[in-house]
Amino acid sequence: MTTDYETLRHADLPQVRAAIRAGRYHSHTAGLGAGYLQANLAILPSAYALDFMRFCQRNPKPCPLTGVSDTGNPMMFTLGRDIDIRTDVPAYNIYRDGKLAGSATDITDVWTDDMVAFALGCSFTFEDALMRAGIPMWHIDNDTTVPMFRSSIETVPAGPFRGKMVVSMRAIPRDRLDEVRDISRRYPLAHGGPVHWGDPAEIGIADPTRPDWGDPAPIPDGHVPVFWACGVTPQVALEAASPPICITHKPGHMLITDIAEDAETPVLPPENNET
Amino acid sequence: MTTDYETLRHADLPQVRAAIRAGRYHSHTAGLGAGYLQANLAILPSAYALDFMRFCQRNPKPCPLTGVSDTGNPMMFTLGRDIDIRTDVPAYNIYRDGKLAGSATDITDVWTDDMVAFALGCSFTFEDALMRAGIPMWHIDNDTTVPMFRSSIETVPAGPFRGKMVVSMRAIPRDRLDEVRDISRRYPLAHGGPVHWGDPAEIGIADPTRPDWGDPAPIPDGHVPVFWACGVTPQVALEAASPPICITHKPGHMLITDIAEDAETPVLPPENNET
Repeated sequence: MTTDYETLRHADLPQVRAAIRAGRYHSHTAGLGAGYLQANLAILPSAYALDFMRFCQRNPKPCPLTGVSDTGNPMMFTLGRDIDIRTDVPAYNIYRDGKLAGSATDITDVWTDDMVAFALGCSFTFEDALMRAGIPMWHIDNDTTVPMFRSSIETVPAGPFRGKMVVSMRAIPRDRLDEVRDISRRYPLAHGGPVHWGDPAEIGIADPTRPDWGDPAPIPDGHVPVFWACGVTPQVALEAASPPICITHKPGHMLITDIAEDAETPVLPPENNET
Repeated sequence: MTTDYETLRHADLPQVRAAIRAGRYHSHTAGLGAGYLQANLAILPSAYALDFMRFCQRNPKPCPLTGVSDTGNPMMFTLGRDIDIRTDVPAYNIYRDGKLAGSATDITDVWTDDMVAFALGCSFTFEDALMRAGIPMWHIDNDTTVPMFRSSIETVPAGPFRGKMVVSMRAIPRDRLDEVRDISRRYPLAHGGPVHWGDPAEIGIADPTRPDWGDPAPIPDGHVPVFWACGVTPQVALEAASPPICITHKPGHMLITDIAEDAETPVLPPENNET
């Protein structure tokens, strides 16, 4: 028995998590668990964990680290009271030697006691904030995927992790540019402020109407193309590192955490703390 | 030949770094390299690096990670174009098995190719911002060290790293409390917003006039004691972990980076980037 999107849209967070965990919901998480931080996922063998963490620290805009598991422990205890990373994401992609090898809705039989799980902030958080400020998001209003481009901006490498930064583009009315920059800078765990605005060629994008990932979106008169660091960047870096195994969320199918979207830090205090 | 504090106070950053590197300056760095981010230092054997990084990610207020070296590479290339962590801090403490074993002004002969260096944000940044807003800092005006206390707040453990959070206290006029909270929250890499304000007993501090570290400071009428997470917390966690060797800065003797204090992220872009 499956649960449909419309039902879950009006459900609370425990109900959403229960449906995902029980395998009753396998679809995207946009608009679910309103008010709670959603995260991208990367699971790696422990031998790669220190370099990947360094890569995230050095590239905080594309890779805003919001949580790290203990080695071999699937419970992401800093992000929720009972999040089991093996079952609590609606769909996973499994890469072997850097190549997509399959997908799954439960990775209990793939998880090993040598693995480390990383949660990275995603753009939902700042898009929500922009829409609350009355900035339209064309791709959301038109039910498409935001356009994404491989830019010429180099990431800062760490061990085998390296590559160009992937950026997402949103067309913003020229007179609201400063406001958009200020609002998105307030969300460093959701890619922060834009990395570029104006001429796409300056960051190596020849044609802004032909994205490398996602769907095309218009740049109407009076609008400026604004580019944010994108969560596809770590996937490109993971392909470059080509670990024997790596598990990610399926794009759009995020981990929904217990952390409020406007929390100052993405960490639950230990349960024995009184403050 | 040594350089004195008053001379360096009016020097630019390259001159300050050159004096420190050449061993001509061994004293504290408050007020030096104005406008640049200063950082606490912890150097550990690589076997401890992943757990220490997890500890920092899980405790971002006391341990705001601003830079991590490659294993065995003493050049902190994300924090400056030529920072050599073996020579560019005015004074170091060396711990063996968790106990202070000595101090040094140069650690070239102690550094090994198995070591990882971590830079952590410090309170100078938010104190500067508060003073610019006209909030007096009693300990600075009176040339004392801020009072610090071992609180009852538990850190989130990671491997062998654990312990109570150490907090620093500043007395703030009651009518400026909201403003102080808002300003300091803007500096997540400098301990962020306060962790507590009001009754010290609520976080296990029996007598706010008797600090565990630093000097006592008054709480005048109309003022509220405000507590921030403190950079001594990782030192307590390092003692708990008791690695065979650990090197830190000597308190007050910080690493001065090339990063602007108000930078959105504490990372220099690779030199080959055009943007």
